[in-house]
Amino acid sequence: MKQVLVDMDGVLADVYAQFIRLEKEESGLVLMPGLLSGKTEAEAFPHYKKHVNSAGFFRTAPLIPGSVEGLKYLNDEYNVLIVSSATEYPDSLKEKLEWLNEFYPFISWQQMIFCGKKDSIQGDIIIDDHPKNLNNFKGQRIIFTQPHNINLPDTTWHRVTTWQEIVEIL
Amino acid sequence: MKQVLVDMDGVLADVYAQFIRLEKEESGLVLMPGLLSGKTEAEAFPHYKKHVNSAGFFRTAPLIPGSVEGLKYLNDEYNVLIVSSATEYPDSLKEKLEWLNEFYPFISWQQMIFCGKKDSIQGDIIIDDHPKNLNNFKGQRIIFTQPHNINLPDTTWHRVTTWQEIVEIL
Repeated sequence: MKQVLVDMDGVLADVYAQFIRLEKEESGLVLMPGLLSGKTEAEAFPHYKKHVNSAGFFRTAPLIPGSVEGLKYLNDEYNVLIVSSATEYPDSLKEKLEWLNEFYPFISWQQMIFCGKKDSIQGDIIIDDHPKNLNNFKGQRIIFTQPHNINLPDTTWHRVTTWQEIVEIL
Repeated sequence: MKQVLVDMDGVLADVYAQFIRLEKEESGLVLMPGLLSGKTEAEAFPHYKKHVNSAGFFRTAPLIPGSVEGLKYLNDEYNVLIVSSATEYPDSLKEKLEWLNEFYPFISWQQMIFCGKKDSIQGDIIIDDHPKNLNNFKGQRIIFTQPHNINLPDTTWHRVTTWQEIVEIL
């Protein structure tokens, strides 16, 4: 059975929706999707650092549509590992674990990896929105479209924009 | 530069000392080292489950002697990744991160991996006290002596009992 590494932020968790909501609450700023294209999250959101460090940021993140059904399908067909960059934000660790337990209860604690860098985690397929996590991966690379990666050329990965597309190709 | 995977519990953190102290506080039971040999921690300590789940268990664990100097040496000579089984115990995640930051400040968040299973983490050398983490590892295997592994034959790994020995052979 092939092993699939699945990212959380930007693939399972809709962190853009979370940043947009918090930015609006913070400053009244309503960020239109077009303004976010090609910028990192830190560039796109004026209060990025404050919000990503705030209690509950990861625990209350909305789901990417279709991710529950999509991950359930992958979990039935593949060895799934959830691999999330998390050690930069100490409070995110438990929040991410509880969030996974709530929304993806079919994922066990044995399938979770919280790390700083992903380049030492082995798998056959990776699904991630960040090129830094895809570029050194030896297997099949799937990039999940988010505003920060939308302008990048798709030369070394397969691009998907929805979980339905993931289910179709895997 | 070769990559070394370093376990926490039983290699950096003296969890046996912690269990022995808590067991004595809990029930007055003073466990002599000879009684622990060949038993799993869950078999050796009557209140294992309660104590491993208690707040502060990992945050207040004593250091394995020589581990600070030893890990500092490894960190200068190798790519070090700290790889710890942690996702079974949600509260252990932040405690382990803070404990590493306090006692091994030269280890960055980029070097930390908290997981359920270690068999997808790549490296050239592994230092661990649990055979389940050593058996499927492709590189050089070093077992750190703890009471639970003391009777196992050393056919597929190199056994060390102190951090001084690790520094001598690496």
